[in-house]
Amino acid sequence: MKGLMQNWPLTVDKILDHANRNYPDREIVSRSVEGPIVTTTYREVYDRSRQLTAALQADGIVLSDRIGTIAWNTARHIECWYGTMGMGAILHTINPRLHPDQIAWLANDANDRILIVDLTFVPIVEQIRDKLHTVEKVIVLCADDDLPESSIELTSYEAWIFGRDTSNVRWGQFDEETACGLCYTSGTTGNPKGVLYSHRSNVLHAFMSLQPDAMNLSGAATVLPVVPMFHANAWGLAFSCLAVGAKLVLPGPRMEPDAIYELLCEHDVTFTAAVPTVWMLLLNHLLENDLDLPALKRVVIGGTAVPERILRTFEEKFGVDVIHAWGMTETSPIGTIGTLPAQLRNAPLDERVAHKLKQGRTPFGVEMKLVDDAGARLPHDGNTPGRVMVRGLAVVGSYFNGSGGNILDGDGFFDTGDIATVDSLGTMQITDRAKDVIKSGGEWISSIDIENIAIGHPEVANAAVIGVYHPKWDERPILIVQPVSGRSPTKDSVLAILEGKIAKWWMPDDVVMVDEIPLGPTGKNNKLALRDQFKDFELST
Amino acid sequence: MKGLMQNWPLTVDKILDHANRNYPDREIVSRSVEGPIVTTTYREVYDRSRQLTAALQADGIVLSDRIGTIAWNTARHIECWYGTMGMGAILHTINPRLHPDQIAWLANDANDRILIVDLTFVPIVEQIRDKLHTVEKVIVLCADDDLPESSIELTSYEAWIFGRDTSNVRWGQFDEETACGLCYTSGTTGNPKGVLYSHRSNVLHAFMSLQPDAMNLSGAATVLPVVPMFHANAWGLAFSCLAVGAKLVLPGPRMEPDAIYELLCEHDVTFTAAVPTVWMLLLNHLLENDLDLPALKRVVIGGTAVPERILRTFEEKFGVDVIHAWGMTETSPIGTIGTLPAQLRNAPLDERVAHKLKQGRTPFGVEMKLVDDAGARLPHDGNTPGRVMVRGLAVVGSYFNGSGGNILDGDGFFDTGDIATVDSLGTMQITDRAKDVIKSGGEWISSIDIENIAIGHPEVANAAVIGVYHPKWDERPILIVQPVSGRSPTKDSVLAILEGKIAKWWMPDDVVMVDEIPLGPTGKNNKLALRDQFKDFELST
Repeated sequence: MKGLMQNWPLTVDKILDHANRNYPDREIVSRSVEGPIVTTTYREVYDRSRQLTAALQADGIVLSDRIGTIAWNTARHIECWYGTMGMGAILHTINPRLHPDQIAWLANDANDRILIVDLTFVPIVEQIRDKLHTVEKVIVLCADDDLPESSIELTSYEAWIFGRDTSNVRWGQFDEETACGLCYTSGTTGNPKGVLYSHRSNVLHAFMSLQPDAMNLSGAATVLPVVPMFHANAWGLAFSCLAVGAKLVLPGPRMEPDAIYELLCEHDVTFTAAVPTVWMLLLNHLLENDLDLPALKRVVIGGTAVPERILRTFEEKFGVDVIHAWGMTETSPIGTIGTLPAQLRNAPLDERVAHKLKQGRTPFGVEMKLVDDAGARLPHDGNTPGRVMVRGLAVVGSYFNGSGGNILDGDGFFDTGDIATVDSLGTMQITDRAKDVIKSGGEWISSIDIENIAIGHPEVANAAVIGVYHPKWDERPILIVQPVSGRSPTKDSVLAILEGKIAKWWMPDDVVMVDEIPLGPTGKNNKLALRDQFKDFELST
Repeated sequence: MKGLMQNWPLTVDKILDHANRNYPDREIVSRSVEGPIVTTTYREVYDRSRQLTAALQADGIVLSDRIGTIAWNTARHIECWYGTMGMGAILHTINPRLHPDQIAWLANDANDRILIVDLTFVPIVEQIRDKLHTVEKVIVLCADDDLPESSIELTSYEAWIFGRDTSNVRWGQFDEETACGLCYTSGTTGNPKGVLYSHRSNVLHAFMSLQPDAMNLSGAATVLPVVPMFHANAWGLAFSCLAVGAKLVLPGPRMEPDAIYELLCEHDVTFTAAVPTVWMLLLNHLLENDLDLPALKRVVIGGTAVPERILRTFEEKFGVDVIHAWGMTETSPIGTIGTLPAQLRNAPLDERVAHKLKQGRTPFGVEMKLVDDAGARLPHDGNTPGRVMVRGLAVVGSYFNGSGGNILDGDGFFDTGDIATVDSLGTMQITDRAKDVIKSGGEWISSIDIENIAIGHPEVANAAVIGVYHPKWDERPILIVQPVSGRSPTKDSVLAILEGKIAKWWMPDDVVMVDEIPLGPTGKNNKLALRDQFKDFELST
């Protein structure tokens, strides 16, 4: 017997409908690519999103066609998301930091029919235009007057959507399983794989992330998503913020600490989210210039592990609640989130910090298990590391175009490729990427644990641990260090900081100083490049 | 094209799975019907719920069979919910305050195969046992030793579930649209109508209610649901609290202010929810005995409008955040909720109180419109009253067994039977029940507005406004007053308090003192009875 409640499909057009109906005057502030800081409202974004839908339909775009964007976080980009998704077409976000040839590959793989780009990225598109086999039209997010001279045909966004009649626009009214967004993972091996979000998964993820123990977002919040909209579904913020009517402050093209600080202050931002690198730079800027963060209450940090000094500086000096989160493109992206369990709310600071350095717990909607290489479950005892497998309401089932084949185990769990422990409170701590773990004499050594401690050295700017060949133990770890500019830490002083904090047999066999540790397109250490660079490294012992 | 995310059906068994996996040691405290306050944990409730499932299956209960409960809020009742719903059977909550004949009618209409009742209600069941045509077994929520002597066959709950093997129990793994719970509305005319919740609607309602601008529930909360589990889906708390791992404190059979106060204090309850009557009594108890509420942070009040003196006493004297909510059995039940909009967070107290006296705004997941008698949309200007129509993810589509026929308008909206205004911030204020509104000379007079003001009179305990026949105006309002015990307010003093607060033509034509205003089974003024009582009332003018 079925329940007799209404059929109300979970589609994201309803989120913008709700925002327009309930918070029409709530503001969205953007640092525009042209320069000035501009302000619009949910009502305007609603109207313009639907004008964009009308433009797409006039161009013959139909349900499930793909529209690519290469764009910063601005209100116009939000309009592109909703205007595309609202009619049931698929919004494909492209990371501009990828190599132009990879961008072309992605647009072709996705069959993007229209490409919408910021002024910043016109040169990239010009360079690859003849390789874009499916793109019929390139739209530039600017007014007609700002359209640059170009070797290729470009249309300005403002001219394209101007004056469109939206009264008969197709909007919503499709199945909630309909594909909604496409985001490729920046795979370090092989071609990138596309994650195809559904309307349902995006709406459910928004609900999951809003709850107090997750992102804790309300209509009174002013939210600055530093995390780019082309990264991991923008951490869901383009959906969750609109669902509650939070004020949005969007950084556009300027991620420098002074630019971020200006927005944080001018608009009394209460909530922000980004990877650790952004905060490292911001905190340095604050400390050097003796600045304060009076309005900021909460910062969600993910992407890579949060270093302790970032956590402590935010909490102790600026009174900001740091929420460590873990997830990936494949999990929409929330997998775990580090709000404190009831048992630790009143614990001493050091205990709370120790907990917050871990990646947090699964909200309802994510199931997690740890398994060994054979797929057998491992205990959640806080000690035993295992492969992190997840299942849930917004977790990938298979990749776009079938790439990678069957990616779920027999119980429907997805292998995240991360290695972690989970303690008795359900708190997960990532110890490594499965491909980065160092297997020494049959045992696992966690590269991330060692890196996190090494970064605590005052003269170490960045650190990476990789395994190199060893005739007896198969692999042994070496520590690669990028010193703070102008400093020259000694090997011994770096090793000394590890002393007593890791097992003796985890101690790196060597320390190598480099000018710069290469980073991947999402700002993480590029260990593939490092392993390649050090593939012939010979241990002195 | 469909999205490629995992298929993860929204079924409530997953909520208890999540609680057991993530918060196994979190406590559920119950005042037992036998007397003592007993404590259990989510792990135990999980194990016992599944033992109950095993017992149901041993008795031949299959998917979508109905199980009735007549029970207070206790951990055992929670087990009944999950043990029944977890296997895909349907949990039918019955209001014990109904007439025994009505209870029999409900159990028959629902085709309840098993009836699970608290010790308190055994006499009711004995009285109607031979009228229960579909009930095969009566379970009493107690141990074998506590089973009373009876004229009918009874089985003790503890003996029934004891030692059941749960390893092969059927649990989850059905379609999310499967019926989950059945709750009848206490219709004042005609037979009650059943609302048949689905697993999906209950899970979505939990997500909707958790968000900070709705119930704002986290794992750190200690929640005392005074609202009975047999009222309006227990306001969703049996799902939302378990989804986040809140500690539950359940009042069992004792709703008296001293009993509620004991639980609030002993367990540092931070969140509670009930109808205004409960709080009126509790606040009197606190004031008379000079007691405090140090831990309590938030109280959600719904069912009928919150009188200003309750609101102000909670906020001003006890520092408790009052959240006014509106909804009904048909809306699972959240329709609107009164958290402050961003614009009013820092407003002066009087402005905030004025807002909080209204019923609040729709969260994402509820759509609302006001219409006139012809179904045409009315403006949301804060002034124009209209019929409240709702559509959403947990709103009734049709009643059980088809009773009432098609209950949605052409756009899929359900007519709530309430009359309200909605202002530009989306805040709704109920002005009347459609059937209680007084139509005087073609215009509407709101009985609730007048009642709320009259209750502000220090000598008025309760007030009700009904329309009586008038030869010229069709209907005119009269005000029926139940004085505070031992007091005798004059008619003029009661009318004086209305002076200037309502339109002149709204002024009641008479004031009638009564010993007691009759209440319906959910504690609201029984206007049907009043209208009957005063059907021959003659206005003196």
